[in-house]
Amino acid sequence: MRIVVVGYGTAGSAAAGYARRFCRECKVIVVERRRYAVFHPCSIPEAIAGLVSFESLREEKPLTPGVEAVLGKRVVDGGGGFIELEDGVRIEYDRLILATGATPLVPGSLREAVGLSGVYTLRDVEDGVRIREKALSSSKAVVIGGGAIGLEVAVALNMLGLKVSVFEMMPHILPGMLDGDMARMAEALLASRGIEVLTNNPARLVEERGGRLRVVGDKQEREADLVVLAVGVRPDTTLAERMGVKTGSLGGIMVDKHMETSVSGIYAAGDNAEVRDLVSGNMTLAMLASPAFRQGRAAGINAAGGSAEYKGTVKPWIVNLHDAAVGGAGISLEAAEKIGMDAVAARIQAYNKPQYMPGAERISVKLVASRDDGRILGVEVFGKADITGLVDVTASLIRLGADVWSAVELENAYMPRFSEVYTPLYVAAEAAARRLERGRRR
Amino acid sequence: MRIVVVGYGTAGSAAAGYARRFCRECKVIVVERRRYAVFHPCSIPEAIAGLVSFESLREEKPLTPGVEAVLGKRVVDGGGGFIELEDGVRIEYDRLILATGATPLVPGSLREAVGLSGVYTLRDVEDGVRIREKALSSSKAVVIGGGAIGLEVAVALNMLGLKVSVFEMMPHILPGMLDGDMARMAEALLASRGIEVLTNNPARLVEERGGRLRVVGDKQEREADLVVLAVGVRPDTTLAERMGVKTGSLGGIMVDKHMETSVSGIYAAGDNAEVRDLVSGNMTLAMLASPAFRQGRAAGINAAGGSAEYKGTVKPWIVNLHDAAVGGAGISLEAAEKIGMDAVAARIQAYNKPQYMPGAERISVKLVASRDDGRILGVEVFGKADITGLVDVTASLIRLGADVWSAVELENAYMPRFSEVYTPLYVAAEAAARRLERGRRR
Repeated sequence: MRIVVVGYGTAGSAAAGYARRFCRECKVIVVERRRYAVFHPCSIPEAIAGLVSFESLREEKPLTPGVEAVLGKRVVDGGGGFIELEDGVRIEYDRLILATGATPLVPGSLREAVGLSGVYTLRDVEDGVRIREKALSSSKAVVIGGGAIGLEVAVALNMLGLKVSVFEMMPHILPGMLDGDMARMAEALLASRGIEVLTNNPARLVEERGGRLRVVGDKQEREADLVVLAVGVRPDTTLAERMGVKTGSLGGIMVDKHMETSVSGIYAAGDNAEVRDLVSGNMTLAMLASPAFRQGRAAGINAAGGSAEYKGTVKPWIVNLHDAAVGGAGISLEAAEKIGMDAVAARIQAYNKPQYMPGAERISVKLVASRDDGRILGVEVFGKADITGLVDVTASLIRLGADVWSAVELENAYMPRFSEVYTPLYVAAEAAARRLERGRRR
Repeated sequence: MRIVVVGYGTAGSAAAGYARRFCRECKVIVVERRRYAVFHPCSIPEAIAGLVSFESLREEKPLTPGVEAVLGKRVVDGGGGFIELEDGVRIEYDRLILATGATPLVPGSLREAVGLSGVYTLRDVEDGVRIREKALSSSKAVVIGGGAIGLEVAVALNMLGLKVSVFEMMPHILPGMLDGDMARMAEALLASRGIEVLTNNPARLVEERGGRLRVVGDKQEREADLVVLAVGVRPDTTLAERMGVKTGSLGGIMVDKHMETSVSGIYAAGDNAEVRDLVSGNMTLAMLASPAFRQGRAAGINAAGGSAEYKGTVKPWIVNLHDAAVGGAGISLEAAEKIGMDAVAARIQAYNKPQYMPGAERISVKLVASRDDGRILGVEVFGKADITGLVDVTASLIRLGADVWSAVELENAYMPRFSEVYTPLYVAAEAAARRLERGRRR
């Protein structure tokens, strides 16, 4: 059996690897428009900052033995058992996995700006290389978009010594991911480093004037040598649509639990696919590497004749603010209320380890729970520490449908060098439980 | 209502704090034989090594406002509504919480050794102070007992420049907590630092000869300036027994889910109490601070008229080997087999973050699961990194009764600075799932 994977990012590499592992007799071919596979796009901001090399983010050979890679070729058409590359070459498949990822979203008013010298979007390692090169001879930057990518690039540019302004159209950064109260903590941290966050300030125009760029927002404008457009991404479904594969209302490819699309034998996985949000029950675009990997795994195993389900996502995420991080999982209170879920939240601060230990930091945790039954719906975390463990534990609880009382009962590994006798999650779960119980007594 | 707590360690302080928080009108009195409360006994080894000060580990005033502390007084008797201190003073109670902790276990053959100069046990901060003082003028140490405390003290003494030998009676260190294969990794690490681990070598005699100590084991003997006895601890039930409170077959105080003892109105919590092991279903002595805190919480709330259950423990633990750590939760394969549980295990190595990132380390994970239904029974982790998140996620899964397939489905917060797209737990869960599926196909 021939399994062809289009796209060699996180989902594509997982799909190819698992397909090959599951079916040793299968021929697995990955086609990628870049000249390399990228396994770690999330490290591009760190590479811009110079903390890791761009070279380390590329893989020029497949990681899984037995997987064949066709690199540097765009797929322009396909269907009926083959795909066609830009050079006219056709590759036959028995099963096809679309792992085409996402492309930067550029609103109409800013589309012209993309052509200007010094204006960049960020998708590939090359974009990162160009941004770093430009940054090294620049003093002022504007990042348009206060989402995950925008903020990480802003932090990277700030570390290179640039004065950075972030234009965000919404009232706070990381909208949809964080609530306003938590977002303000991250904004304060950025401000303390000299990163200016201009909220309620959608960028309307980027123009060149006398060799400098000027970014005009609804409320404020800034001059810059370097502008990064990071207002968001959208699923790359060009090939899927050409092949008659159905897309959903969010613009992603529709798949079932086996990651199979509307066309039998064609699968999709990663940023281009619409999957179930396990908290809201609605469809969502996860746009995260960890879910993309699991989706790729399921698509690969199923394409190879096995059976693996991807039930849905709880969207654990984390944004690197260097020396600090903000992250979460599930749904924010604002987002829950927006879709009519009856939720309560508790926000606390607690130390990650005993106060006398080096590296002790106050961690802010906001826990969102269902008012009805106390089920944990979401968590938001901010702190100057490694918060992945906290997010991961909560993401597990959310996935397993645990409630705040279960979270209070959890025991944790205690060692003063790393942790306290109880975790910040425990403190947040207790506060949420108290709030729920108070509500019931009334 | 008067609530009296005997013992101001982790369980006692949690009990007092929660009792007071739950019942503002209650008078809460803690009686402690030491002149201070210790909240962080687990930091004593770090203080011996000089990484934190001994002073920072003591609390001379109650942490919870409204809690009264009687320090430096031993409780010698009690029952029928009062306790009696060593100076004859009686303190009345309506509810009593026994949080008397544990005392070092000294086997008969070594009891005489405790009187020798240079031979120490470790329970209080003062013991730590004395050990450090002696260590600073010593060159050779023997630690008797390769359990958690013994190893952490051995590491601390090694950091002070002493040549350290650990005598362990069992075939590997951390018996009962780790399997042999995982223990050997920790042993190899200790050996690489010059800490000698002598297994199958129970200490039989410690004697003084010409001003030096000599420790004689079954197989080997060593000379030393300093000997630390850390063969284990046993519940301190002296007061409980005087009061007619029932103890169980493990030597701990018997309690129900509300942490109430056989005597109505008397509660117990912490190292002195027998609690349910949620994995085996048997009673156990948790002897860990994190469970002690939860038990103290439940005892405090219940004593104050509220209702809180402590359902049992999954025993998450971690031992600080400095720059490395070993930890786990649930049950080891050896321990599971010993009590007749039909378990399988998978052991893997995986990086904690992308290999190109600073701080990337291979983490070893052994996952133990029920052969019958794949339920996760235990985890063992070793690595030169912060492994608390990994232990905590698995401990949560164990408590919630999740199986290895659920663990494969978990998504995690991915950020190259802290984590990979998948965790070492994911890799271990996949390996365990494959093993279980292979077993079924046969």
